[in-house]
Formats: sequence, structure tokens, C-alpha cells
Amino acid sequence: MTTTGLGGAALGAFRARFGEALSTADAALDAHGRDESGLEAARPGAVLFARTEADVVDALALAREFRVPVVPFAAGSSLEGQLIPPPGALSLDLSGMTRVLEVRPGAFQATLGGMASTNASGTAAVRYGTTRENVLALRVALMDGRVLSLGSRTRKSSAGYDLRHLFLGAEGTLGVITELTVRLWPLPAARLALRCAFPDVGSAAQAATAVIGASAQPERLELMDARGLRAVNRHLGLQEPEVPTLWIELAGASAGALEDVRALCEELCRDAGALDVRVARQPEELEALWRARHHAFYALKALYPGDAFLSTDLCVPLDALPEILTFTEEGLRAEGLDASVLGHVGDGNFHVLFHAPPGSGDWARIDALYARLVERTLALGGTCSGEHGVGLHKRRFLRAQHGDAVDLMREVKTLLDPLNLLNPGKVLPDPASG
Amino acid sequence: MTTTGLGGAALGAFRARFGEALSTADAALDAHGRDESGLEAARPGAVLFARTEADVVDALALAREFRVPVVPFAAGSSLEGQLIPPPGALSLDLSGMTRVLEVRPGAFQATLGGMASTNASGTAAVRYGTTRENVLALRVALMDGRVLSLGSRTRKSSAGYDLRHLFLGAEGTLGVITELTVRLWPLPAARLALRCAFPDVGSAAQAATAVIGASAQPERLELMDARGLRAVNRHLGLQEPEVPTLWIELAGASAGALEDVRALCEELCRDAGALDVRVARQPEELEALWRARHHAFYALKALYPGDAFLSTDLCVPLDALPEILTFTEEGLRAEGLDASVLGHVGDGNFHVLFHAPPGSGDWARIDALYARLVERTLALGGTCSGEHGVGLHKRRFLRAQHGDAVDLMREVKTLLDPLNLLNPGKVLPDPASG
Repeated sequence: MTTTGLGGAALGAFRARFGEALSTADAALDAHGRDESGLEAARPGAVLFARTEADVVDALALAREFRVPVVPFAAGSSLEGQLIPPPGALSLDLSGMTRVLEVRPGAFQATLGGMASTNASGTAAVRYGTTRENVLALRVALMDGRVLSLGSRTRKSSAGYDLRHLFLGAEGTLGVITELTVRLWPLPAARLALRCAFPDVGSAAQAATAVIGASAQPERLELMDARGLRAVNRHLGLQEPEVPTLWIELAGASAGALEDVRALCEELCRDAGALDVRVARQPEELEALWRARHHAFYALKALYPGDAFLSTDLCVPLDALPEILTFTEEGLRAEGLDASVLGHVGDGNFHVLFHAPPGSGDWARIDALYARLVERTLALGGTCSGEHGVGLHKRRFLRAQHGDAVDLMREVKTLLDPLNLLNPGKVLPDPASG
Repeated sequence: MTTTGLGGAALGAFRARFGEALSTADAALDAHGRDESGLEAARPGAVLFARTEADVVDALALAREFRVPVVPFAAGSSLEGQLIPPPGALSLDLSGMTRVLEVRPGAFQATLGGMASTNASGTAAVRYGTTRENVLALRVALMDGRVLSLGSRTRKSSAGYDLRHLFLGAEGTLGVITELTVRLWPLPAARLALRCAFPDVGSAAQAATAVIGASAQPERLELMDARGLRAVNRHLGLQEPEVPTLWIELAGASAGALEDVRALCEELCRDAGALDVRVARQPEELEALWRARHHAFYALKALYPGDAFLSTDLCVPLDALPEILTFTEEGLRAEGLDASVLGHVGDGNFHVLFHAPPGSGDWARIDALYARLVERTLALGGTCSGEHGVGLHKRRFLRAQHGDAVDLMREVKTLLDPLNLLNPGKVLPDPASG
């Protein structure tokens, strides 16, 4: 579908309504033309800094009138090209809409609206669920001018179709979320963590599945491979053992209540072949124990400053985790690629952080291995994205994963955005190719 | 929309395809014309006992061809008239589709497909979520002949629109679920329960919110009022204290891990004014402790054999629970109604079990109080249905609860069932009235 975009008449109309809140300054256009995917940037036609739901509604009305594509934007931290604007698009910056509350469950430098739009999660999802499970209600501005309230503040409801979930994870392609009601969880009174060193990634994965299967209900259950620890040691000057490592965090209503579970987890890890288990109970010990894991992503980026990075986001059923991780290890070894594996393995979700100089011959091998990993993941009943979303990057995998359901996704898109103005070209595969 | 229903030609075509699996026997028609709502029964035109997904697909194709309304049916235990057929409908009995697994999370005499279609839950939802949160994937037969697979076996996914949730809780009005992949949870190794007696319902509700707020993460958290206990004592010959009572069940990886949480819960209950706290740890003690709660519904029904029953299914945000329960108590007292209050209060969900002889003058007062309870519930941010669904009964509340979102629900219905053949007249309010 062709769109006229933000030409002179449209720009004039937007400026008349929004004044200073509309920017075409170079700095604003540059900042709103990229995300953290590393995909090629592209400037939007203008940036609108929305402050209220009325701003959003009026912007969509003008976009409809002048056929301007709209890309909702907040922190700019998406990882799959969700925020790269098509030509002449309006970047609708919602980061000013923070009234009443800020809640940041897990991810750093992300906004709640952005997390809802990609159904993002992170280390705490194994215990508290993803963003989807924690959004009780939302308000969404539709392309036709309606603003709907979906869901309620209750913990459960069976009153009519649950339309909330259409908009969660839709990456701004079906409507613009203007308000979110999120579930808050009490902070547990007591907390402890174990860090367990393993001889290989497969045995670490075995231990992870055993911990979940034993109903230990950890707060976090994270894996990092030897290459990741090597990078963190070098970057932060640490002396952590450079072997596959599992972190298990437990929390509860009292310190006493945790010790039996701690002993159980330790036993399960040793049964799976753990070489060493360390335990932290005090806040500063906990921070030190977690330090390597928390800094992994940026340590790797800092260590290879000239390189481009590409992170997978595969997720498999838990019983398939040892198999897919071993398959990944073998693939990396066979291709001679220096990529790091880390992940939220309590959920079966892991990232392979590929990196190589831009334009290097490594990228063809990386792309081929990535495709093989996706293929095996889907064969195991998994998903091409556990938490990062689809954006531009993973559209090519959607048909293989969802089959004919992609057609129904497209029909829902047409129902809600018949002019294809809301973040066009994201999530759904190109009609020509899939 | 008018439909021709199961006339001679249609009946002949169904019989030609399905033979003995299609029944028009009186017993079958009677058994498929009612549910547990107490609403007036109405016979379907015929009953098809489906065995396979192909049966479902072919039945929908014939229904499309002959314009026959279809009502998916399984255990017949729905509570809001979901299964009452319109004239000439086909009752599509899916209860034979039990291949591979039977999983029965909580409710008695319900099927998994029926629970998915109403997003049903029960006592364990406070810890494990409702059916919605435990369906990882499903296959659904659409009215246009497509059969789609939605979701995956993984614990999380951000790969495209999540269409699963459209069909969960849709009560068979958007498609017919033919296969479900549900999340299994490990059985905890250790379990204990507390039963706490309170001077009034308000203080019991205070204790319930305190237990949730303290992160005690109970497996169940149930309330029953004095009238309910009186009925159970009389029916089962028990001598339980006839005061508002809270049950708290805890579970974990070891018995030792539970004792601190048990002490915390006991303290919170006493702080809220508990008169008495009893603890059970062994399986037979646990069963005895829970007996009164488990038998409440049928004890009340057996005690008033001639009466008609009507159960509300309201659910409020947890902080509003003491207020709505006190409001309910006052309403019952003011109207002089002998109704019992019980519920899954850890989720803010509770039932008022109204009963009176059919046609008695009590029903006008019951209906008026029910409407006032819904109005107050919605004002508190609650929902008219926590777990029973909408069916015929609650369609009148949908507009007040969801506002304009009802229109989008209707658009989704039209997209998926343009001929309005799938369980027509359920969930969505009459276009004329709302």
C-alpha cells in the first residue's frame, strides 16, 4: 500500500496542532531512526513528543487524513528493528507519557509501554511471567479514532473476549497503547542465590530443568557459557571460573524457609555434575555473585568495539533445552564462531550473541547457523522469539512457525488498520514472501 | 441474523456424513439442552458426538452450507447458559475428544476444552493462574474451514500476534477448539493447610489480603461465611464453628520450608482478629480440614431441594475485597435473604449463592441486589465474571463493564463468524439492547 507520508500539507497540519511538540530537528530525527538491533537506520519525517492520550488520538486522526505511517517510539531499546521508520513516517514518541507510575520489571532502559508492545521479559519471568501476564488492563488508541479500555484491575476475569492480548506484543501495528495497569508483586522478605559451575553447557541445562521440575520455583535461573565469562573477566577484571555457569536465585517470606530449597537446588546441581557451588545471602554478596551475568551483554559489546552484533532469542520447551544448547555449541564449534550463549534458561529462553566486523565473511556463516538454529527450535516445539519480538528481523520466520495462522494475523491487522499506517512492515511477513 | 437450522435436508446431510454419531434421540436432546445455570432448557435439533478434528471440520462445513447454528458442548457444567441451544442448532459434543491426556486442574466434572472456552478456574488459580495462563497452545477449527495452530509449547513467546487468547474464554462463539496443550506443574513435595475462624467476613477478607501482600504465595485461599458452614454442618453432620472461615493452603519443596510461612500466615490472621487457627499436615488431616469447603455448593443445593439457585461470580481488585464483602453482607441483611457467600478470595473472586423457590417473590429482590452488587463491583474496578463466563446470563452487564470495547468484540465476531452460526446469542449483548 502506498502512503503519501509527511509531506508539506501534512507537516503543516501536524505543526498547527502540536506546535513545539513536533520536531524535525536533525538530532530528533537521528535519535528516532534506529533501535538496538543494529539494522540500518532511517530517519522519520518528523517526531511528535506526545504528552497525553488526546495527543495520540489527534495524531492518529491526522495520520489517517494525510495517510502518514506512524511508528510508536519510547526508549528506543527494541532489538529487532521494530522502530526503524518507513519513508515519511511520523515517529510518535510516547516516552513523556509517564504520569502516575513508573514500573520497570527487569529490563534496563526500556519503558513499560515498549515492553508491553513486544511482550518483553527478562530474568524474573521464570517466577512472575512476561509482561503479558502482568498487564491487567490497558487503554489503546485505534486508527479509526476510538480509544478503548481493555481488561480490568482484577487478577482474573471471564467476561467477554480478552482483546488485551491482541495489542500486547503487537509492536504498535494494531493500535497505540496510551495507558497500562500492571500487576504489582510484593518484594519477598528474604533472598539468596547460588552460582554453580559446570563442565559443559548440556549438564548446566540438565540442572536447570531439574530445578524447575522439582518445584523449587526460583526467582531467576540464568545461564552463561565459558566464552561469556571470559569476556566479562577481561572487561571487568574479575577472576570468575571460565566454565558454563548457572545462577539460581530463591526468595521467600523468611530466610529460614529458603534453606531447605537451597539444599535441594544444590543437590540437583551436584547430581547434574556441578563442579562448584557458591551461595550468597547478604545484599552485597548477592550483587557480587550476579555481577558477571548482569554485565555480560555490555562487556561483550565493549570487548569488540568495532564489531556488529546479532542476538538470537530462541525459546524451547524446557525438556528440549539440553538438546538445543548442545546443538548450538556444536554449530558454533563447527563454524569456528566466537559467539556467546546466555539466557533465561528456567524459561527455555537463550540468546546466542553473534558478533563480527561489519561486512566480514563471518556473516554468511552466522546467518546460515542462525537459520539452522531456528529450524531446529521450531522442530522442537519452540519459538523464534522468546522476548524480543519480531520487528523487521524475524518476519521471515513467522510463516514457518505459525503456518496459516499468519493469514488470520493479517486479517486482524486489516480489521484494525485497513490503511496499513500503524508501524507498517513490522511483525507480519511481506505478503509477497510469506 | 436468521438461520434455517437443522431441517430435513440438513439433517439428511449430517446423517449421511456421520451416521450413528449423530443422534436425535430424546435422551440425547434433553441432555444437551441444559447446563448448570438453571436457565430454561431448550432442545437442540440434533447432537453430534465428534471423535476427531476432521469430524469438527466437516460439521462446521455442513453447518455453513445449511446455515445451522452450532453449540460446542462437553461436560454440560457451564453456569451461565453457555450451552442452551438456539432453535434448530447442532449440539457439537466434544467430550469424546480426550485422546492422549486428561488434565483436570481444579473443577470437578468439567472438561479441559470447556474450561478453556470459559477461562474457568477455581481454588488453585491463586497460585497457578486461570485456564488462560495454563494453555500454551491450541488448535481451533474456524467457521470458514480453516484449522489453525496457535501458540507453542514454550513458556514464553513474542513471535507475532497472540491469537490464542481470542479463543480462550470465547465460549465457542469464534471457533471450535479441537486440541489443547496445557502447562503441567510439578506436584509439590510438602503441603499444609490452616483453617482460621473470624468474627466477621470483613476481618477474614483483611486477613486474606494480608496473606497475599506478604508474599506467602498460598496454593489456595478460600472463604466461606457462617451461613455456608451452617448448611454444611447440617448436611454432613459436622460440628464446624459456624463463623466466617478462611482456608489457607501452603505447599513447597519440603515440610521444613513451610513452617516459617505457616507461622507468618497464622500471625497475619490473628492480627486481623482470628478467633481460632487450626493446622493440618497429614493427607487425611488435610482432607478433613477442607471437607466443609469442598462440599459447600452441593450441601446448599441438597439442603433446599425445591429451590432454584443463582450464583454470582464477581471479582474485585484485592484491596477492594473487604469493602465489597461488607457491602454484600449488608445487602443480604437488608433484603432478608438467606444466601451464602464463598469464594476464591486470594484472587478477589467470590460467589453469592442465592436460592429461593422458583417463582417466589424473593427473586425480584435477588435480581435487584445482584444488579447493585455488579454496579458496585464495576465501580471498584472489578469484573462481573471471575471464572464462570458470560453465557446468556451476564450479557446485560457487558456494556457497563467494557464500554466501546464491546463494539470491537462484535467486529471480531463478524470477522470470524460472519453468518453468526457459532453459539449464536452467547457472550455478546443483544445488538438492540447494548
